Amino acid sequence: MARTGRRPGNADTRQAILDVARTQFAELGYEGVSLRGIARAAGVDAALVHHYFDGKSGLFAEVMQLPLDPAVALPGVLDGDVEQLGERLLRFFLALWESPETGPRMRAAIRTALSSEEASTRLGHFVVQEILGRLATRLGSDQAMTRATLTGTQLIGLAVARYLVQADPLIRMSVEEIVAAVAPTLQGYLTGDLAEVLAAEPVQA
Amino acid sequence: MARTGRRPGNADTRQAILDVARTQFAELGYEGVSLRGIARAAGVDAALVHHYFDGKSGLFAEVMQLPLDPAVALPGVLDGDVEQLGERLLRFFLALWESPETGPRMRAAIRTALSSEEASTRLGHFVVQEILGRLATRLGSDQAMTRATLTGTQLIGLAVARYLVQADPLIRMSVEEIVAAVAPTLQGYLTGDLAEVLAAEPVQA
Repeated sequence: MARTGRRPGNADTRQAILDVARTQFAELGYEGVSLRGIARAAGVDAALVHHYFDGKSGLFAEVMQLPLDPAVALPGVLDGDVEQLGERLLRFFLALWESPETGPRMRAAIRTALSSEEASTRLGHFVVQEILGRLATRLGSDQAMTRATLTGTQLIGLAVARYLVQADPLIRMSVEEIVAAVAPTLQGYLTGDLAEVLAAEPVQA
Repeated sequence: MARTGRRPGNADTRQAILDVARTQFAELGYEGVSLRGIARAAGVDAALVHHYFDGKSGLFAEVMQLPLDPAVALPGVLDGDVEQLGERLLRFFLALWESPETGPRMRAAIRTALSSEEASTRLGHFVVQEILGRLATRLGSDQAMTRATLTGTQLIGLAVARYLVQADPLIRMSVEEIVAAVAPTLQGYLTGDLAEVLAAEPVQA
């Protein structure tokens, strides 16, 4: 045993952290959870949690069995010309769902997340903080969170219709056809003229 | 007992039809079900199924506990200037979800529908035939089904993000702000220039 009485790093420790994290995310929600609190409940050093999971976002991704941690994957997509960001985001998102490796995990994760009110809200907080928040920071414009969220609605609707509901005309479209049809919508939300909306918007996060 | 040996119309008959329909929609999918087949399995006259449920769409809506039958509700929305159709559709859709009467049933129905692959596909066939099909017929343009389906992706994504996931910036927006932001997207899909997509589209339903 380690000098502190805390368990040393090994597969059991990793699993113990995951078990505690699953419970705490369910009980406290994404925002309510701290890595320190998880480490305490698991009886390990907080540095170990960081060592295994690369932060709260990575830990949540693992608990939800998401195929990737947005904190790791997103920066590469957000980099580059903001005027092409809609298309880059869309291609990245479609690739995740189309891939035989990550697609089934995306479908399973989204089904779980939408199965109950609690799970939906938990996913919502994660998506808002770790995905839309990063997108908004990249935009850096007024009402960037609203722009990011509108972008999110079109992406999630596309995924639900094509990969869960498998709506007929949509599953017969190629990725290129979808990009041609939907990227302009995303780009419009990201950098287009939303004057009426922006003027009407009351509070901003 | 009726002369034919079939049960006469009453509450039990209605329930018997619903029970058979629930099983048949689950086993055969929306497209595979016929009112005649349901009537036969329930031991009633096909006219009685029509009498109680106003057709296959109404029966499915009842089985899925949808708050309305699109065959009844949609024509009023589709009527009128096609250049304002995006906004009319969006206002109708948002009203369904916002209403304290129909909103909870919409959430329950969509959660059920997204809970399993089978249920999602079944809802997909219903939505394609009874909602997007009607919308496409109203449009009457080339690739109308593709236009209707793209419209559907934005609507369903909005519902998932605002009413299921309850993404923070979105739940703070008013219906008017959402209409200002999203109606142009819908109108673009319905009647806008989709030349690149249309040229690329391979087959049409």
